[in-house]
Amino acid sequence: MTAQGTIWGVGLGPGDPELLSVKADRLLRGARHVAYFRKAGRPGQARRILDDMLHPEVTEIPLEYPVTTEIPLSDPRYNATLSAFYDQSTKRLRALSDAGEEVVVVSEGDPFFYGSFMHLYTRLRDVCPVQVVPAITGMAAAWTATGTPITWGDDVLSTVMGTLPEDDLSEHMRRSDALVVMKIGRNIDKVRRALRAAGRYDAAWLVEFASMPGQTVQKLSEIEGKPTPYFSIIIVHGQGRRP
Amino acid sequence: MTAQGTIWGVGLGPGDPELLSVKADRLLRGARHVAYFRKAGRPGQARRILDDMLHPEVTEIPLEYPVTTEIPLSDPRYNATLSAFYDQSTKRLRALSDAGEEVVVVSEGDPFFYGSFMHLYTRLRDVCPVQVVPAITGMAAAWTATGTPITWGDDVLSTVMGTLPEDDLSEHMRRSDALVVMKIGRNIDKVRRALRAAGRYDAAWLVEFASMPGQTVQKLSEIEGKPTPYFSIIIVHGQGRRP
Repeated sequence: MTAQGTIWGVGLGPGDPELLSVKADRLLRGARHVAYFRKAGRPGQARRILDDMLHPEVTEIPLEYPVTTEIPLSDPRYNATLSAFYDQSTKRLRALSDAGEEVVVVSEGDPFFYGSFMHLYTRLRDVCPVQVVPAITGMAAAWTATGTPITWGDDVLSTVMGTLPEDDLSEHMRRSDALVVMKIGRNIDKVRRALRAAGRYDAAWLVEFASMPGQTVQKLSEIEGKPTPYFSIIIVHGQGRRP
Repeated sequence: MTAQGTIWGVGLGPGDPELLSVKADRLLRGARHVAYFRKAGRPGQARRILDDMLHPEVTEIPLEYPVTTEIPLSDPRYNATLSAFYDQSTKRLRALSDAGEEVVVVSEGDPFFYGSFMHLYTRLRDVCPVQVVPAITGMAAAWTATGTPITWGDDVLSTVMGTLPEDDLSEHMRRSDALVVMKIGRNIDKVRRALRAAGRYDAAWLVEFASMPGQTVQKLSEIEGKPTPYFSIIIVHGQGRRP
């Protein structure tokens, strides 16, 4: 009987290939099976980070989302469609594990921090060996890009998603010292209103493509009316104790 | 005239040397001057991660805290003593930069996330070239160690310090979905009371030495009365949307 192979959930970090961990770099260069998520018909951000890294004989396993923004989150078909997709992806990976193969499944950022891999992880962890390798988050690359530390002393940092209701957003923005806002995209107008209501708008920075070639860092108040790419993160720095 | 050398603020990550970034690993192995913080008379956690990595001809620059917990934070001498220490450390690094030398200053975790390097950074950035390399945070290693993802869907993650007043702590604990508590040590009893008041105590995990050889993961409620090392992080997982 063949021993099951390990499924590795490996974080790729924020985008710069040099910001992979030494461990992720080693696992990816040696991997014979590499799986990654992407939207059908697109190369995918995760796959792009892997260029020039993969073994010539690697088998690539693209896991293509059946839906991203075509069905609203509130529609029950959204959950049902995604759930079927994760079940099917799990089957593919488990079959490889059962055949004794190791598979590296990559995630942008850190695998356990708002990542798609988590949905495979919870389905796989009871049926085959799974190991997770943490990574540098996109938000760490974003605050580094601003050139100003994010948290000092006793600062409270809150990480909020632009998909939240406006009142919840502004309440968290008001109560935290330092702030990170992700999943902005089409929520940008709501996020701007919530920041204004919380009195944090003038202190907010928008970082696009943190650590990637097109990186930009701008005051949010100075770029009204411009579209914001999906890879945008808003940063408000804490002002805590500093000797 | 010699061009000034760059001061690199490099995050070491959570403790496992394989969780350094490829960039940090490259900079450290090639560095001729490496500075790190430590308590006088102790080897220091940061220095320990560097064992077996440093160039044989490296010059080590230990920056020794004149005070850690001997003077309370509220005493004005605390800030004055630390401020003088950071000024003096800045002078040492600037002298090297002015002589054309590059210096790598290491931080545990990420340099801009509650790190001591930030106090040098703000003093150095206007007088010599400074570059910062982000890193995997201790909290990412801690949530990875629990074997359960930290944030799903629209979850709000708040990071709070055990040094905060009890009421502030419990208020943030109540309002967030996912929670990270750091700087625990002698604040553990207060942190336990705040978690109880917020109704989060039974869901809290204590991770010690995340990603390091002595790593432990325990339910906080099952280890009453035990001392908690400084390298402890409390994790409460979010329960957000999951297809």
